[in-house]
Amino acid sequence: MKFFEVIKARGSYRKAFTDAPVPHADLERIVDAGIRAPSGYNGQSTSFVVVTDPDQRARVAEIAGSRPVLNTAQAIIVVVMDPGATATKENSFGVEDYAAAVENMLLAATALGYASVWIDGALRRENIAARIAAELGIPDDREVRVILPVGVPAEPVTQNTRRGFGKRAWFERWGGE
Amino acid sequence: MKFFEVIKARGSYRKAFTDAPVPHADLERIVDAGIRAPSGYNGQSTSFVVVTDPDQRARVAEIAGSRPVLNTAQAIIVVVMDPGATATKENSFGVEDYAAAVENMLLAATALGYASVWIDGALRRENIAARIAAELGIPDDREVRVILPVGVPAEPVTQNTRRGFGKRAWFERWGGE
Repeated sequence: MKFFEVIKARGSYRKAFTDAPVPHADLERIVDAGIRAPSGYNGQSTSFVVVTDPDQRARVAEIAGSRPVLNTAQAIIVVVMDPGATATKENSFGVEDYAAAVENMLLAATALGYASVWIDGALRRENIAARIAAELGIPDDREVRVILPVGVPAEPVTQNTRRGFGKRAWFERWGGE
Repeated sequence: MKFFEVIKARGSYRKAFTDAPVPHADLERIVDAGIRAPSGYNGQSTSFVVVTDPDQRARVAEIAGSRPVLNTAQAIIVVVMDPGATATKENSFGVEDYAAAVENMLLAATALGYASVWIDGALRRENIAARIAAELGIPDDREVRVILPVGVPAEPVTQNTRRGFGKRAWFERWGGE
């Protein structure tokens, strides 16, 4: 797909996936897009665990709170932040870094005909992030921040409506010239 | 350009731009890509001021610390966060939101033949973000977080090398199966 078509086609998909497989080669392309996102000081503070094994997927889905988009996903990409990656410098860019990587992966999944959704805040409740980390052998000094279910959508993917130019974007000055 | 070509072509560009213009229509496409990024609860906490006026550009560049990529940019996109957009809920996603929007805009600029760079941490020093906000009439309850200089690159754009699969990405478990 062409770039701007992908930008318009991506949407947060929360319904069921079909049982069409997602080959490892496609998941590698999706994660490679995440790896190629920029990061503060090129610190590359984001890591990725791609869960495709059905039993392991089911365990992650159960920890995260069963729902159609997780239970039917052919893969769950677990996005991990290293909060110490830039800790010796005056700033930390861990959140910015993983967010850029997640966005690249959401677009890449869309470009390959899949759908996904950025599941983030839900992991911060009830120790869910730490329980997923324990399940996948993720070290204690890292944080699970996002999971991305991936599959072929069984229903149409739509993009939320947005406020656009004139509402939250202007030339030259806030609120327009 | 095709999507995955854009992912591979995007790089953090810190050198001079040519004096080739960047039409407003292209800047609108770039910012529209940012507007179409996902945001927590669809809170759309990111706003954008696109500075193209030469005098205004020069003032923003001077506040941010003159350097070739700012002094020669045909446009500077100022990315503004509303830290209160999700404040009534249990989480705040302002940083995630603007990071996803910035990444979309960096990719969109690349797709249109321009280059840019994510200037972020530098604004957090010496009150620079607040001084840019004052210059552009941005309200006190918003934060300038990123500026993106945009133009036609005078030199080749390169992408930093990355650690990839086997180093920070694995299937099934941290460190691999």
